[in-house]
Amino acid sequence: METLTGITNGPAVNEDRALATPFLRCLIRLIRAQDTHGAWEGKSDAELLADFILTKEQRRQIPIIGDPDPDVLWRLQIFYACVGLVIEERSGLVASPIMLIGQEGFGRVLLTTGRLVVLSKTLRDVHRFGFGTLGKLAEAGTKMVDDAIAVIDVYPNVARA
Amino acid sequence: METLTGITNGPAVNEDRALATPFLRCLIRLIRAQDTHGAWEGKSDAELLADFILTKEQRRQIPIIGDPDPDVLWRLQIFYACVGLVIEERSGLVASPIMLIGQEGFGRVLLTTGRLVVLSKTLRDVHRFGFGTLGKLAEAGTKMVDDAIAVIDVYPNVARA
Repeated sequence: METLTGITNGPAVNEDRALATPFLRCLIRLIRAQDTHGAWEGKSDAELLADFILTKEQRRQIPIIGDPDPDVLWRLQIFYACVGLVIEERSGLVASPIMLIGQEGFGRVLLTTGRLVVLSKTLRDVHRFGFGTLGKLAEAGTKMVDDAIAVIDVYPNVARA
Repeated sequence: METLTGITNGPAVNEDRALATPFLRCLIRLIRAQDTHGAWEGKSDAELLADFILTKEQRRQIPIIGDPDPDVLWRLQIFYACVGLVIEERSGLVASPIMLIGQEGFGRVLLTTGRLVVLSKTLRDVHRFGFGTLGKLAEAGTKMVDDAIAVIDVYPNVARA
């Protein structure tokens, strides 16, 4: 199976392709919707997502002591809200996220539709939430959506209960 | 159907009967388990649960402005942890709670077993969390457990997924 990161035409092409995925298009829409003062109007889509991207080196430099930064919590919230919205786009079912972040950067996130848990994930090292490339960000979100849709397909009646 | 509050032998008998329910026995066990310094050893079970009981008058006097008191959040946590444990006692399935309290006393609690949502509740007026009598506390918890068990019976394979 060809993955988003599997293409070899260089980073720029990868970026454009990643930005065109339904997941990143939704994420950009969500972020722009919060730009109430128009401060980000001049920014490109890739610039808006820049803070989601962390190189290995950058990740390593972020201390994992104490509470995670409010900005990283905001990105985490919006990332899982986006997973929920894309699930809704594809299935027609509202997927509500519930996220709990403890004081040391550990947490848990659940996405449910009806009585069905479509995503359940333990979060670790929340301080360092980020992805190596835009392609990896798109891929991670898309995979969560795909997995959720697969669960809905197995238990359609529970997802509508 | 006879309810716990439906008996007419007076409050003391009601109390004893409520304290003997699996729900309150579990709740007392959970509370005593947190008494690491033995400060509550001399307290009776009813005394330990006293803060869960609020008369209408008392409820009305609690302001619902600002963040809820940490003590009330602790009682809320332990109440839903107890619902989860009694579900486990009865079904053999681990029920994990996840609770999110917003800044104004609104929140959401979910209990899941496997891929099944066995309890989903919007919390309001968290500041005023409490019950009129021990009987009402026992009844409320027992009803949540009963409802969850009923859902597990409908979707046994999802609860084990």
